[in-house]
Amino acid sequence: MEFSPLIDRLINDLCCLPGVGPKTAQRMAFFLLERDRDGAKQLANTLLDAVANIKHCKSCRTLTELDICSICSNSRRDKSQLCIVETPTDIRAIEQSTEYKGTYFVLMGHLSPLDGIGPEQLGLSELESRLAHDNTVKEVILATNPTVEGEATAHYIAEMIKPMNITATRLAHGIPMGGELEYIDGGTLSHAFVGRKDYY
Amino acid sequence: MEFSPLIDRLINDLCCLPGVGPKTAQRMAFFLLERDRDGAKQLANTLLDAVANIKHCKSCRTLTELDICSICSNSRRDKSQLCIVETPTDIRAIEQSTEYKGTYFVLMGHLSPLDGIGPEQLGLSELESRLAHDNTVKEVILATNPTVEGEATAHYIAEMIKPMNITATRLAHGIPMGGELEYIDGGTLSHAFVGRKDYY
Repeated sequence: MEFSPLIDRLINDLCCLPGVGPKTAQRMAFFLLERDRDGAKQLANTLLDAVANIKHCKSCRTLTELDICSICSNSRRDKSQLCIVETPTDIRAIEQSTEYKGTYFVLMGHLSPLDGIGPEQLGLSELESRLAHDNTVKEVILATNPTVEGEATAHYIAEMIKPMNITATRLAHGIPMGGELEYIDGGTLSHAFVGRKDYY
Repeated sequence: MEFSPLIDRLINDLCCLPGVGPKTAQRMAFFLLERDRDGAKQLANTLLDAVANIKHCKSCRTLTELDICSICSNSRRDKSQLCIVETPTDIRAIEQSTEYKGTYFVLMGHLSPLDGIGPEQLGLSELESRLAHDNTVKEVILATNPTVEGEATAHYIAEMIKPMNITATRLAHGIPMGGELEYIDGGTLSHAFVGRKDYY
């Protein structure tokens, strides 16, 4: 015996959330039905609203309900700098902790040929033609993750813009603040050593 | 800077799910928007359907979209036995692992005076008058959890039906199957010792 068909369907549909299995979904379903029907209703309406209205910014490809996101449409942002990131959450991380006032381009992933994700899926041909025809961008900051795929993606973009008159920079590798030399992996330590700076 | 208002609202509303904090909600929101919009839509519609249609069974108080749940309306269930449980999930556990063919009554909680949950909230006065006027029930199985509150609730119900001509039984306490004596708590071991049975 299972629960009633509708409860079973609710539990099953909750499993579409990442990290939620049947047991967690069951707990969520009963919590919502017994304790928070208003919250469940509001969540449902927001989900429908979001699925219907959130799309990619026509300029930077981040997720937004606007045609052009608030950063791209902000006239006080420096259009000569373009920071290329993998996801919208990377934008938030950079905005929260740096003084960066330029603009962004969101790949929504990284090069991953085995998964069928090539330059086309990341909007790179579009980016290439935009950079080639529009001379406002002077520096491209390659802020993809320091993983194998992220490095490959950064390399691809760097090669792509080489013929153009644009500087390409990459976020610095090194020892994280508060880290201890003893516990840092060899690759990072080697990067930090080679990239050592004058103290004065 | 946060995300766009609608994405922020989606992340905020996902936090109404139990066990989901801001970071998990953010991951869920982007997963749904990027990978599974169909799943999100379906989940939203099921949530609305469930919130609007799932109510308590008029007979046993379990959650169901029917007026009378499938167990209560099943004529092959033995109406002379009534098993009292705390939640609908307890019914499922009993149905999955026992041969019980009687009916249920779901308290939807346990006595907890500090939280304002008394006999009225658990439907006990309703149960009392039903048992008093209807002579079909011969045995009440007290299957509340073996916690302080569950024991208190079982005790309350047992006292309530004492004047009636109904047997009250309680699930046996003892060593769980596959358990090791060494690691079992004293209370359980003491119960198991006192309640020892003839081997032959």
